[in-house]
Amino acid sequence: MNKWITRFSTSTPLNERINRTLDKQVKLAVTGLSRSGKTVFITSLVHQLLHGLNSTHLPFFQIVNSGLLRGVKAMPQPDMHIPSFRYDVAVEQLCGELPTWPQPTSGITEIRLAIRYLSNKPLLKHVSPVSTLYVDIIDYPGEWLLDLSLLELNYEQWSKQIARACESEPRLSLSEKWRSFMDSLDPASEADETTMRQAASLYTDFLHDCKDSGLSLLQPGRFTMPGDDLKGAPLLEFCPLLKIPQDIDNQSSLFAEMKKRYESYKEHVVKKFYNEHFSSFDRQIVLADVLRAFNTGYPTFTDMRDAINMVMKSFQYGKSGLINRLFGGLKIDKILFAATKADHVTPEQLPNLENFLRAMVTKSYNNATFEGVRTETIALAAVKCTQAAYTTYQGQKISCIKGMPLQGDKPIALFPGDVPVEAPMPEEWVDGRFQFLEFKPPRLANIHGSGLPHIRLDRALEFLLGDKF
Amino acid sequence: MNKWITRFSTSTPLNERINRTLDKQVKLAVTGLSRSGKTVFITSLVHQLLHGLNSTHLPFFQIVNSGLLRGVKAMPQPDMHIPSFRYDVAVEQLCGELPTWPQPTSGITEIRLAIRYLSNKPLLKHVSPVSTLYVDIIDYPGEWLLDLSLLELNYEQWSKQIARACESEPRLSLSEKWRSFMDSLDPASEADETTMRQAASLYTDFLHDCKDSGLSLLQPGRFTMPGDDLKGAPLLEFCPLLKIPQDIDNQSSLFAEMKKRYESYKEHVVKKFYNEHFSSFDRQIVLADVLRAFNTGYPTFTDMRDAINMVMKSFQYGKSGLINRLFGGLKIDKILFAATKADHVTPEQLPNLENFLRAMVTKSYNNATFEGVRTETIALAAVKCTQAAYTTYQGQKISCIKGMPLQGDKPIALFPGDVPVEAPMPEEWVDGRFQFLEFKPPRLANIHGSGLPHIRLDRALEFLLGDKF
Repeated sequence: MNKWITRFSTSTPLNERINRTLDKQVKLAVTGLSRSGKTVFITSLVHQLLHGLNSTHLPFFQIVNSGLLRGVKAMPQPDMHIPSFRYDVAVEQLCGELPTWPQPTSGITEIRLAIRYLSNKPLLKHVSPVSTLYVDIIDYPGEWLLDLSLLELNYEQWSKQIARACESEPRLSLSEKWRSFMDSLDPASEADETTMRQAASLYTDFLHDCKDSGLSLLQPGRFTMPGDDLKGAPLLEFCPLLKIPQDIDNQSSLFAEMKKRYESYKEHVVKKFYNEHFSSFDRQIVLADVLRAFNTGYPTFTDMRDAINMVMKSFQYGKSGLINRLFGGLKIDKILFAATKADHVTPEQLPNLENFLRAMVTKSYNNATFEGVRTETIALAAVKCTQAAYTTYQGQKISCIKGMPLQGDKPIALFPGDVPVEAPMPEEWVDGRFQFLEFKPPRLANIHGSGLPHIRLDRALEFLLGDKF
Repeated sequence: MNKWITRFSTSTPLNERINRTLDKQVKLAVTGLSRSGKTVFITSLVHQLLHGLNSTHLPFFQIVNSGLLRGVKAMPQPDMHIPSFRYDVAVEQLCGELPTWPQPTSGITEIRLAIRYLSNKPLLKHVSPVSTLYVDIIDYPGEWLLDLSLLELNYEQWSKQIARACESEPRLSLSEKWRSFMDSLDPASEADETTMRQAASLYTDFLHDCKDSGLSLLQPGRFTMPGDDLKGAPLLEFCPLLKIPQDIDNQSSLFAEMKKRYESYKEHVVKKFYNEHFSSFDRQIVLADVLRAFNTGYPTFTDMRDAINMVMKSFQYGKSGLINRLFGGLKIDKILFAATKADHVTPEQLPNLENFLRAMVTKSYNNATFEGVRTETIALAAVKCTQAAYTTYQGQKISCIKGMPLQGDKPIALFPGDVPVEAPMPEEWVDGRFQFLEFKPPRLANIHGSGLPHIRLDRALEFLLGDKF
C-alpha cells in the first residue's frame, strides 16, 4: 500500500545536519473551472515529486536538478476538517493496468508533502543543513471564485445581470423552462417553500444545462458545485427574479424572501470560503481547458474568457480592493495561469497557445502584476498522452500528434488545427476548424519507478515553489 | 402542492387585532438515538398542528382545545444554512395510497411553524389581540450528544474507556477484526495516512456492527452519523489505541497523530455543534425506542440506558457544569423524555412504560430538575398504527393489540408482553419474554382533513409549548 511514499533516507551523512529552524511551509492552491483537469494535475504533481529522487524527469525544477533534494514524502495534512485529496485512489486509476482518468473532486480537498532538501548555505564549515519545505496543496472548484463578484451586487442588480444574459443565445433557449415558470409568479405574493424550491430547482437545471453546453460563467457557484453540507439548505434555494418589482415592503413576499436568501448565501457561503480558506493561500495556480472552448464555438469561448477573467479578478481584489476591505488582504504573491492538455496540440503550437492565453487574460494579468503579485502564463500537460509525429500531405511534411482517443481502441494520428494567436472573430468560428480530441491516459510500464510523462510541469513547479528553497 | 398549508383566515373579525409586539419565538429541539422515530415524530407534530383548526384530535393541547387557535402555517425557516426538514416529502410517504415510514434524516434539519392565536388578555375592551408564536423545530442525531463526554476526556483516557468496553461481550466479538489490526501496529512508529485510514475504517465498521446489534453507545458520534461535509476529512480518520504507549515524544508517531485528530474532532465537531446550535435551543424532547431494547436483551438494554443517561447529562452539564464553563450556559428550561411507539403495547401497559422510563433516567432526571430545568417523562405514539383488542385465553379476557406487521400483508392480533416496572435482572431476560413487533403505518381515509391518529402527542405539545401562549 505504501509503495508510493519515498521514504527519507534513514542515514544522514555526517556533513548534513537537520535544521528545523529552516523549515518552511507554503500553501499552494489549485483551482480551475470544472473539467479543467485539477485532479489529474495534482495527482501528477504529487507523483513527480514523490519520485523526484529517482529520475531526471524534472529538468527545469532546480531543487531536483541541482541534486540538493533529499526526499519527498506525503504527510498527514494540517487542516483536519478538510477532506483529504485521495492521491492513492487517483494514482491507482491513472496508473493501473487499464489506465483511466481519475474521478474529479467536487469540493475542497487537501494533501501535504514534505520536501526535504539540502540548503546551500553551510551551517558550519562543510556542514550543510537539511531542511524541510511543507507544501500543502489545496484543491477547490473555480466556480466558487465566480461568486466573489456577488459581494459587490445586491439582489436586484444581480437579478438584472442574469436576466440580461438570458436575453441572448445560448442562454435564451437554455433558460426557457425556468423563465416561463418565473413569469407565472407574482414577486409580491406570499413566499412559500414549495414555489421557491421549484424555482431554485429549475434555475439549477438551467445552470447544469449551461455547463453541459460548455458555458463557464455559472452563478451562484455552489448551485452546480454545492459541497455536501449545504444540500437542502434554504440558502441554496433561491434564484434571480426576471422582473424586479417596485415598492414591495411585505417582508414575507417572494421577492423579500429570495433577497434574504441571496444575502444569506453571500454571508454564509461566499464570505466563509474567503475567511476560512482563500485568505490563507500563498500561491495559486488557475487551470483552464482553453482547447475545449475552441471546439465548442464563439459564445462558449467568450463565456470562458469572461469566467476566467472573473476568477482572476479575485486576486486583484485581494490586494487593494474588495477582499482587502472585507477580509484584510490576501497573502498570495504568485499566480500561475495554465492552459492544461497542452499535449492535444502539436509541439510547434505551444508558443501560440501560451501567447493566446496571455492575450485572453491581459487585463487581469496587468492588474495583478501591478498589485505586486507575480503572474505567469504557461501551457502544460500534467500527464502527456500523445506523441509528436509527422505525416505527409500533398508532398509536405505536416506535424501531428498520435494517441489513443478516449472513445476508441486504436491509436490515431491527428492534425488538431492551428492555435490562433488571438481570438478569432465570430464569423471565423467555422465548424471543424478545431478538433482537439480527448485522449486516454498512456499505459506506463514502470510507474512506481519514475515520474509520469508531462509537458512543462517542471517549469510550473519552478515558478510556484522554486524560490521557497 | 400546498394543500398541507392551512392558511390564515383572510378576514380578521373586528374584535380581533393583530398585535406584533406579542409575537414570540421558541426553538424546539428534537433528538433521539437513531431509529427512535424522530422523523415520524416531527412529521406527525407538524401535521397535527397544521390541522389544529379542523378537528378535535388534540384534547390536551390547551390552545387548540380552548378555541383560541386562529391558524397554523409552515413558514420559511430562519436559519438558511441548515437543511430543511422536508415535511412535504415525509407526509407524502406516510399518507400515500400505500403508506410507508418516511426516510430517516441523518444530520441536522429545521422547519418553522407560525401558530397564530388569540391572547386571552384583552387589549381594549372586547378587543382581543392576535399574536404569533414561531416554533422552529430542529432535528439532530442523538449520537452527536454522546460526544459531549469526550470533552472531559483526553485521548489516553478515552482510549482506555473503549478498550475496557471491548473486553466484554457483545463488543468483545464485534471488535475482533479492528482489535487484531490494532495489535499489529506500533504506536511509536511513524504515522502514515493509509494505516490511519484503515484503522479508522475498521473501527467505523465495528461501530456500525454495534449499531446493527442494537447497541446505542457509539463514540465518536459522527463516525456513524457523519453529516456530509466531513466525509473524508482526517478528523474522522482516527480511532482509540488499545495500548497507550509510555513516553513517546515523536510528534509524527501514530500515537501523536491519532491524538491530534481526536483533539481536532473535539474542537471542530463537538464544540462547533454546541456553539452553533445546541446553545440556542429553548426546549428539548429526547425520543427513545425503549421497546426495541427490551426485544434484544440485557446487554443492549443496559447500553441504551447508559447512552440515554449520557444524552441527558448534556442538559445537566449545561446549567452548572462543563457546557456552562465552555460555552456560557444553555437556554433550555424544559426537557421531555419520551418513549416512542407506545402503540406497540396494550393501553393498560402505558403507565408501566412511563414508570419504567422514569426509573431508567432517575438519576439524570433528578439532577436536571435540581438545576432548574423542568423534566417530564411520557410514553407516546406519534402515529398510532395499532388498535386495542381483546382475545380470550383459557376463559380469561386478555388485552392485546391489532395491526399490520411491517413484514406481512395480513393484520395480526398480538399480545406483546407485559412491560416490567423496573429493569429485569440479567437472568430474567429469557428469550421470547418480549415481542414488540414493528407495524406498518395505518391507511387513512382523509389525511388532509384532520390530524393523524396518535397517543399522547397532545400532552407532549402541552408540556413543550403550552406555557408559551
